[in-house]
Amino acid sequence: MATERRSGRLTPELLTIGVDIGGTKIAAGVVTADGKVIDTARRDTPDRDGSATVVEAAILDAVGELSSRHRVHAVGIAAAGFVDADRRTVLFAPHLSWRNEPLRDALYRRLRLPVVVENDANASAWGEYRFGAGDGEQQLLVVNLGTGIGGAYVTNGSVQRGRFGIAGEFGHMQVVSGGHRCECGNRGCWEQYASGNALVREARALAASGSPMAHALLDRADGDPAKITGLSVTALAGEGDEACRELFQEVGEWLGVGIANLVAAYDPGRVVIGGGVSEAGDLLLDPARQAFRRSLTGRGYRPEATLVLAALGNKAGLVGAADLARPFARRLYRARYRREQARK
Amino acid sequence: MATERRSGRLTPELLTIGVDIGGTKIAAGVVTADGKVIDTARRDTPDRDGSATVVEAAILDAVGELSSRHRVHAVGIAAAGFVDADRRTVLFAPHLSWRNEPLRDALYRRLRLPVVVENDANASAWGEYRFGAGDGEQQLLVVNLGTGIGGAYVTNGSVQRGRFGIAGEFGHMQVVSGGHRCECGNRGCWEQYASGNALVREARALAASGSPMAHALLDRADGDPAKITGLSVTALAGEGDEACRELFQEVGEWLGVGIANLVAAYDPGRVVIGGGVSEAGDLLLDPARQAFRRSLTGRGYRPEATLVLAALGNKAGLVGAADLARPFARRLYRARYRREQARK
Repeated sequence: MATERRSGRLTPELLTIGVDIGGTKIAAGVVTADGKVIDTARRDTPDRDGSATVVEAAILDAVGELSSRHRVHAVGIAAAGFVDADRRTVLFAPHLSWRNEPLRDALYRRLRLPVVVENDANASAWGEYRFGAGDGEQQLLVVNLGTGIGGAYVTNGSVQRGRFGIAGEFGHMQVVSGGHRCECGNRGCWEQYASGNALVREARALAASGSPMAHALLDRADGDPAKITGLSVTALAGEGDEACRELFQEVGEWLGVGIANLVAAYDPGRVVIGGGVSEAGDLLLDPARQAFRRSLTGRGYRPEATLVLAALGNKAGLVGAADLARPFARRLYRARYRREQARK
Repeated sequence: MATERRSGRLTPELLTIGVDIGGTKIAAGVVTADGKVIDTARRDTPDRDGSATVVEAAILDAVGELSSRHRVHAVGIAAAGFVDADRRTVLFAPHLSWRNEPLRDALYRRLRLPVVVENDANASAWGEYRFGAGDGEQQLLVVNLGTGIGGAYVTNGSVQRGRFGIAGEFGHMQVVSGGHRCECGNRGCWEQYASGNALVREARALAASGSPMAHALLDRADGDPAKITGLSVTALAGEGDEACRELFQEVGEWLGVGIANLVAAYDPGRVVIGGGVSEAGDLLLDPARQAFRRSLTGRGYRPEATLVLAALGNKAGLVGAADLARPFARRLYRARYRREQARK
């Protein structure tokens, strides 16, 4: 077994489990100290109406499956929602109907393993920082485009969590005064212009307008604008469809404008763009880079951050959560070691 | 003389000088370890066309005056502009026509004292954090409203400087797509809506419109809209003039919207609002607080930062710069002490 030297004592390479609670799937994985996923387990996410206990049962089930095959020492949970500063309680998770849910303690009681709960965007930013596109950059901005926009800022070896644990809600910064209504209740939020939801909304509006530009889009959706998905827009754009390329151009431009705003504030050395929408690659990244260069304040008089694509795909959250739990795994291992020594 | 225990050795309370290079005045002061200004010197800022040498000569002159009256151990300079990550070079200072000016080395050669150069917004944020309205908050956002908007984020005892030293350019985050043209070359920057310049621009536009609302404003400016100043708007608003109160209402609302954006990203525990415009007090703060509460994403489901006024007034930059130089003063003192001991 691989070993690593810690505190002057040889310890075996500890395995931890990362769990990413998504809107439809709960993905769990066993992760090594160098960020490799060596085993996985999946469960469906229970209905939004299901109680917290049902979701917890699904998590425990997936973790139990993996624990039966590997000796693990800690569990990290990535959850879409506000997580408190102590990383114990989910303050608010709109997609799971959770409010002030003491997830860490509930899981710990059943697992008897150290548990860390982290916001999913923070966890995936940490994953990219440690094992992905971060590449050693100590001032790293990560922006994830899914249905909305999540993200985090990593500086000098830690995720910036803010005073109450809920920093990094970049998607809800207003970029258009009086703009599109957002799920958060406000108007003009960035994620209404540069996310998967924005892409689909605009594609459907284009199709509903009856424009001949939308011919291919409608064909792919059985003639029903409501059936257009982000995947079909991406596929058609990849095949060279003009309308779909323009849709990515628009979303990419808003992405670049919003990143320029964040770079004005944070001044990172590198910006990692992840999440499902980023799988479109250069279709998204080219217009984003152009708009970023055009929008960055002080351009030409300052060094500029580089924009790159994320490297870990949809495993970033799981890998990051597992790694955030690792320090607790080490503590547990040492405590067990000391107990065993004392018994001898 | 007061003493403080450092590294297990008693050292006298070291004095440092802070220098704030403003658009019209260079303000220098001798500052104690607890942030008190015990002596000051002022010089006019040389013309924008003046070479860097002329500005440096004015700085040296002010520092020389203070050094002749006090034994000082380091100098901190607060400069409006991009300062590099090493705090040696002013990369770009639009108001001084500086570009890549090695200010620290130039001053050190003449002063033979440790010199630290810092962006003025960073320096004044540090001043508020250490001795002002920060009040022990370890996640502190500072927003300064002058002609533009400067600011900084202070976390766990240090100013966030970013990868290249130029974080905190909050005033140049876009809040209105295709909005007012900004001096930075972009459109819709926050400081075009929530700064002293914004207040004066709107007051002049109101006066030029011929609206009877602007009667008092025009009276105070000899009937010439171009002569309206921020001070006259503030004075009239304080006297209850309806138009001027509405102007502050507008600027305050934009202030609150922009702060809500920053709080979504940083999640501070407290927001300090400083700079000349903040001297209007509640005229500005009341609408800002209202707009902030209305604009903050997740409101009602999260703890919220409090908005407070800065405490140090226009001395914040000078006090902060002096305090940022203090660690170097200690090093210098110890080196001198060791040399003296070695000679004995």
